[in-house]
Amino acid sequence: MLPEKSSEFRLIERFRAAVGDGISVPVGIGDDAAVVRWKTGTGLLAADMLLEGVHFQLSAAEVSQVGRKAVAVNLSDVAAMAGIPTYVLVSLALPRSADPEMADELFSGMIDLTDEFDVVIVGGDTNSWDGPLIVSVAVAGDAPERGAVTRSDAQAGDWIFVTGDLGGSLMGKHLNFTPRLREAQRLYEAVKLHSMIDVSDGLIADLYHILEESDVGAIIEADSIPVSAAAGKTAAQTGKPPLEHALGDGEDFELLFTVSAEAGRKLVATNPLSIQLSHIGIVTDDVRCVLTAADGEERELPRLGWSHALSQTD
Amino acid sequence: MLPEKSSEFRLIERFRAAVGDGISVPVGIGDDAAVVRWKTGTGLLAADMLLEGVHFQLSAAEVSQVGRKAVAVNLSDVAAMAGIPTYVLVSLALPRSADPEMADELFSGMIDLTDEFDVVIVGGDTNSWDGPLIVSVAVAGDAPERGAVTRSDAQAGDWIFVTGDLGGSLMGKHLNFTPRLREAQRLYEAVKLHSMIDVSDGLIADLYHILEESDVGAIIEADSIPVSAAAGKTAAQTGKPPLEHALGDGEDFELLFTVSAEAGRKLVATNPLSIQLSHIGIVTDDVRCVLTAADGEERELPRLGWSHALSQTD
Repeated sequence: MLPEKSSEFRLIERFRAAVGDGISVPVGIGDDAAVVRWKTGTGLLAADMLLEGVHFQLSAAEVSQVGRKAVAVNLSDVAAMAGIPTYVLVSLALPRSADPEMADELFSGMIDLTDEFDVVIVGGDTNSWDGPLIVSVAVAGDAPERGAVTRSDAQAGDWIFVTGDLGGSLMGKHLNFTPRLREAQRLYEAVKLHSMIDVSDGLIADLYHILEESDVGAIIEADSIPVSAAAGKTAAQTGKPPLEHALGDGEDFELLFTVSAEAGRKLVATNPLSIQLSHIGIVTDDVRCVLTAADGEERELPRLGWSHALSQTD
Repeated sequence: MLPEKSSEFRLIERFRAAVGDGISVPVGIGDDAAVVRWKTGTGLLAADMLLEGVHFQLSAAEVSQVGRKAVAVNLSDVAAMAGIPTYVLVSLALPRSADPEMADELFSGMIDLTDEFDVVIVGGDTNSWDGPLIVSVAVAGDAPERGAVTRSDAQAGDWIFVTGDLGGSLMGKHLNFTPRLREAQRLYEAVKLHSMIDVSDGLIADLYHILEESDVGAIIEADSIPVSAAAGKTAAQTGKPPLEHALGDGEDFELLFTVSAEAGRKLVATNPLSIQLSHIGIVTDDVRCVLTAADGEERELPRLGWSHALSQTD
């Protein structure tokens, strides 16, 4: 009934050799479900689907990069909770017209990343069809002992930070970014994280997710935003200010988080990470998001349409 | 960067009201990942993807039936391990041209089933695109205390059983079957299950998965196969024998399992289920699958192409 089942099973045979079962996975790929050992009593679950033509173009990305990214965006979701990913499920729709090696290439990109973070691909579903490539990944993980960091506990007076630099991810970073799992762990060891999210939709859009879930507002200082070189290159093409790309572009998968002012001072004094860490603003009890320019001028960034508003005034 | 994010968030808002967070789900839909409580130290993970045009046709199925089926096939995988499903992740690709109510209809079909089995939809990913409908589901569950039932522990001398009746599922059952979760639990309480699988590819194809994983063979008695009324109706259309549809059609999602001869006698004497339970054959140490007809004639059913072989002789 399910077509291509025999090719699915051939793939499973090849794939078993690559991932193998361990103590944490008594039954891996090839049965109705994987049997896994949970390391703690509290887990994390997330899923993300990448669609050819929407989230990637095969003309602009290697197949292995697509596989890697499909896993990376899921690991980034776990990082944003300060969790530790453990198991991944991969469901594929492969174009019938594609190279028969496509599945292998997808998995090779995935395994590069799962090996790096001690994650095991424990199962999934492989199909062929006449449509484009679809890679649907689900991840399970362990919540941190101190409790998962949600979007909903930002508090007025918190300092707002972001890792790395932002903007222009489509120039390349969106295909080869490293999920900030280690960084989230180190930050959480150093200070109590109040709220956190990964920057997938764009800095302001994702900040708004924290603000709305926490029922607070924010003041962001334009000069403190870490504008990437890629944002500059993108701006040269679009004619918009680089800052706009740093505020609006998505898919940087950096960590955006808030901590108490005291913890914030500690992070500014000693960055526990080996990457850039920027204090970009503060949380307020006024449910608005305000951008303060270098000249002191303040402008409100609405939930939607802020980019247009910014372009009009800059 | 991710298109249709705002509609995704509208959907999340609507959906939160339907599923709510409980003690077992400290953080549900709407954060980067769901935070869940594992009930035991050993879990089950599985995933299945349904593609429009491959696994269903919207001309022949209600949208809510597609949603229900996408969850049901995953719960059936957990049933086949004798496990208990707990959490589900749902990733969707919705056709941009579709009715805006499509996501609601999908979820309404899912919730009918998740409510019945105390499963919580804890997250996922919703996208719009110009392609067909895709519903990708992952499930997490608890392994049974006695240990998950795999495909790889069938033993020579085991009796082979199947629940319900088989064949012609496309007449309707494939859209409204009930995953055999309760039945798997009751069977496992009554006897030690050696191996089990759900009949998704077809009785003989799925039996072969057990035989190959367990390195054993089987003798099946043709007269003992529970041929469904739908197999008969389908046979009237195809001109093939109803038995062939019972042996070959997929998507009945019944349980196919093996137990010791002693346990088998117990099940035959007292069926612990409220549905039909058929003793259809025995496991042998000869790595072949043989079908014994009423007249005593034996014919081997090869791994592939058995259907054609059967048609030639019947």
